[in-house]
Amino acid sequence: MSENYKNRLIEAYQAQENRTFYAAWPENPKAYAEDANAKGLEAFQKSLAQNFTQLDQEGSNGWVGEEISPYMMQGLGIHYPAFSADTLISKAQSAQQIWSQTSVEKRAEVLVNALDRVSARFFEIAYATMHTTGQSFVMSFQASGPHANDRAMEVLSMGYHELTRFPQAIDWVKNMGKFDLTLKKTYKPIPKGVALVIGCSTFPTWNTVPGLFASLITGNTSIVKPHPKSVLPIAIVVAEMQAALRDAGLPTSVVQLAVDTLESPITKHLAENTAVRLIDYTGGSAFGDYIESLPGKVVFTEKAGVNSVILDSVADAQPVFGNLAFAASLYSGQMCTAPQNIFVPESGIATAAGNLSFDDVVAGISAAVKGLAENPKMGAGTLGAIQNDITAKRVTDVSNSGAQMAAASLHVENAEFPDARTASTVVMVVDQNDTQHWQHECFGPILFVVKTRNSQESLRLAAASAQNLGAITCQCYTTSDAYAQEVEMAMNAVFTPVSFNFTGAAFVNQHAAFSDFHVTGGNPSGNASFTDSQYVNRRFVWVGNRYMA
Amino acid sequence: MSENYKNRLIEAYQAQENRTFYAAWPENPKAYAEDANAKGLEAFQKSLAQNFTQLDQEGSNGWVGEEISPYMMQGLGIHYPAFSADTLISKAQSAQQIWSQTSVEKRAEVLVNALDRVSARFFEIAYATMHTTGQSFVMSFQASGPHANDRAMEVLSMGYHELTRFPQAIDWVKNMGKFDLTLKKTYKPIPKGVALVIGCSTFPTWNTVPGLFASLITGNTSIVKPHPKSVLPIAIVVAEMQAALRDAGLPTSVVQLAVDTLESPITKHLAENTAVRLIDYTGGSAFGDYIESLPGKVVFTEKAGVNSVILDSVADAQPVFGNLAFAASLYSGQMCTAPQNIFVPESGIATAAGNLSFDDVVAGISAAVKGLAENPKMGAGTLGAIQNDITAKRVTDVSNSGAQMAAASLHVENAEFPDARTASTVVMVVDQNDTQHWQHECFGPILFVVKTRNSQESLRLAAASAQNLGAITCQCYTTSDAYAQEVEMAMNAVFTPVSFNFTGAAFVNQHAAFSDFHVTGGNPSGNASFTDSQYVNRRFVWVGNRYMA
Repeated sequence: MSENYKNRLIEAYQAQENRTFYAAWPENPKAYAEDANAKGLEAFQKSLAQNFTQLDQEGSNGWVGEEISPYMMQGLGIHYPAFSADTLISKAQSAQQIWSQTSVEKRAEVLVNALDRVSARFFEIAYATMHTTGQSFVMSFQASGPHANDRAMEVLSMGYHELTRFPQAIDWVKNMGKFDLTLKKTYKPIPKGVALVIGCSTFPTWNTVPGLFASLITGNTSIVKPHPKSVLPIAIVVAEMQAALRDAGLPTSVVQLAVDTLESPITKHLAENTAVRLIDYTGGSAFGDYIESLPGKVVFTEKAGVNSVILDSVADAQPVFGNLAFAASLYSGQMCTAPQNIFVPESGIATAAGNLSFDDVVAGISAAVKGLAENPKMGAGTLGAIQNDITAKRVTDVSNSGAQMAAASLHVENAEFPDARTASTVVMVVDQNDTQHWQHECFGPILFVVKTRNSQESLRLAAASAQNLGAITCQCYTTSDAYAQEVEMAMNAVFTPVSFNFTGAAFVNQHAAFSDFHVTGGNPSGNASFTDSQYVNRRFVWVGNRYMA
Repeated sequence: MSENYKNRLIEAYQAQENRTFYAAWPENPKAYAEDANAKGLEAFQKSLAQNFTQLDQEGSNGWVGEEISPYMMQGLGIHYPAFSADTLISKAQSAQQIWSQTSVEKRAEVLVNALDRVSARFFEIAYATMHTTGQSFVMSFQASGPHANDRAMEVLSMGYHELTRFPQAIDWVKNMGKFDLTLKKTYKPIPKGVALVIGCSTFPTWNTVPGLFASLITGNTSIVKPHPKSVLPIAIVVAEMQAALRDAGLPTSVVQLAVDTLESPITKHLAENTAVRLIDYTGGSAFGDYIESLPGKVVFTEKAGVNSVILDSVADAQPVFGNLAFAASLYSGQMCTAPQNIFVPESGIATAAGNLSFDDVVAGISAAVKGLAENPKMGAGTLGAIQNDITAKRVTDVSNSGAQMAAASLHVENAEFPDARTASTVVMVVDQNDTQHWQHECFGPILFVVKTRNSQESLRLAAASAQNLGAITCQCYTTSDAYAQEVEMAMNAVFTPVSFNFTGAAFVNQHAAFSDFHVTGGNPSGNASFTDSQYVNRRFVWVGNRYMA
């Protein structure tokens, strides 16, 4: 049990108020015990083709599981207990009173302890993430391990601050002229109710734990509904959370795992139940829009978006092409922050070595993308594997769409996993008027180089795209301060952050906990942000009682 | 111009974090200049039967005005310039860029200055409030003057704090092992867009300025749409705000007044315009539900509610009856915080002097209500006048509803205004099963004493009423600590604050700025609260940009 959890929360809160670099858990696998990797792999392998029995949940109505490793192209054979929506909600409700009356300090302690427990299983979670999402080992480790824990810690520390922001009790003394009127007043943060967290297939813990820990620290019991194809990583997290609750003498049904199948989904049964007052959702826009439309709920969504790159002028083109190729290829573009459309003026771009024509830019980007994919030390590790067949098919469909193809998508051999489903990034070239190609989300390893009239048009198109289709991020390359200011103003006005002139180790894809707000909540890519104060404050209500002194 | 506006904001913010007594403007009219009252009255009288020409708004399409004094039962004859929704929105949009790029410090300074200007017209605003709402002079002065300014200051200080919470720019340095990755990051609070504030007829400034100043401090230009029958008080406020903007060299269309008529309302034209991104609303539930249902808006509502009193046991009954009578009769029950239903067990209530039967309780409450109304020093001043005919008719309808009447509503003579529309509080007695009488909002001077099986039933009914119909507040009288705890827990669970055992100068109606959250936002009485941090934070979006160092 962590004894200094309060100091850790205060330190984490100060970090996010300062927004400078902070990490509660090291992201480097080598910072962990020497045998941790081997043990994690062993634990993962032992869990295959078994029932997952680590959950403390009674009343199952069967066992389900349909995860497939994108590396092995085989089912994992892991089965999880299934529960009816009614069972889950009734248990969540029965735990709600105890949990809501558990002090903020106690809740915080249990939840920090849960994260410590999770950190002891980072390597196992990494392998579970690899073999459900197709992420590379390093990304799996970082995203589902320390980075996810960091985002949870960020939420816990923000929640702890906001929940303890006002005094619990005061004497309110008002001078009425001839006498003082004295009232005792108390202030209580009352949780909203049962929370539902709906996970996605590509980032099963990173996108789930912020909402989950936000609902829990604010006193709401929570049901975690993972994507049926990406269960194991979050199942391990939930099991550790339940263990932390049990250790603290609290009901384990404060957090429950709700596994379903693609054929018999239970998400709508859970979401539409009136007891469910809070919903966190990561996934496609159609279902996200449905979730947002449910009456009587407070909803936090991260949906689809189309991220733009505005290429105006550069000092040196090669590092830019390399950076773009990496950003687009990292985890085969299956990140919500991956760039999709690169807007390039038809006249090309200025560089220190003179003008680079539009065709030269296309050739440069294509060469960088191909070079990365074909580099035996980089390709397989950067691309990882394709999480599902729909994404793989989309690459084919885009390739055959009739637009000009500058770089074909290739199968990239993975020495360790010969059966891995891989696809390098396809680079398509389109005119700005060919909106049917580029003006919608094409999730996966797909890049469009969009030929525009000029840089003003590039900006106009990028801003309109963010406003209408949503955007989580935007990248701009320019050597002009004036143009940079224009881009910043126009993109910020549609609630899209801009990263300028990233090269080297800086990638637009990476949003760091404690420093980068993830999603702004201002455009159609989502209605909420990791982690501003609303992210916790909207999950409870301040109620003040008054007593005659 | 206030030079120390920052210190005043910081002081006001610290007050609300501490939640102890604080007032930025004294509520006692005697604290102001000796001739202020006379000058205010004169200014009010001069404005009668005139065009209101103090607004700095061009492009009017005519003059409208239909205010009627509930004291004189005569039209005020004041006409205001009318504008089309399109004109108002186009001007708001054209001012949006300048205002959003005005620094937070400058915005804060201008808005504090506006409040100072308003304070110089407190007495005129008081008379304007009297003769539109029917409030007594003292309530008009306090509610529309210092108390409204205090709520605006509360919002400004919260906004100033939240907007300056994060650094504007930082260097983010991440050690990558062999080198440091350094990024410059900036954080900008980006306003949502044009704001609309829809006022009500009974509290034309108190219920309008919180949302108005919240939208403005966060950088959103704002359109104020008052109730057609209560324009003058907020028209003066808007005129002073425009003067403060003009003095600062800023466009006066940052805040505009949108006056319409009951016959040709423009509210929906404004609310449904896609440029309007924020809406604050005070008023009836039907229109409030419509406002909440508008897609793509962030909406803050205060709608109808039914406030309960739970009478269980008391030490001394008389002060309790007196307190209840005053709370119900103050401004003839036309407050969103006025009690409506008093739940009393059929066996009566325990007192230090023995049990008081149900009938004795009814008689005691009725006597107190009548005694107050008939007291020549208290009656007219406490009751004020009835704002509109619908409320007056409701009193008659309830009186004739067939339920048992324990105290009839009386016309109370007002020596100063013989034509005043007055009605003392009617007290009706009903059984808990006669829900058709008491289980809906009866706005105005109407009290139901509801006979319940026992105090457990009283609590169950009060909690269900708050959950289903909404409640802004609840009052409980009990000498039992155990029962008090039950009541607090059950009412708080439906997001309703409870005031316990109020007697003397403590009245459930009064919510003090800086200390009492007004409306919780958790039940159907409204979806937002004056003033938690969400009240400002939901009006802008944090956007972080990153630059290669």
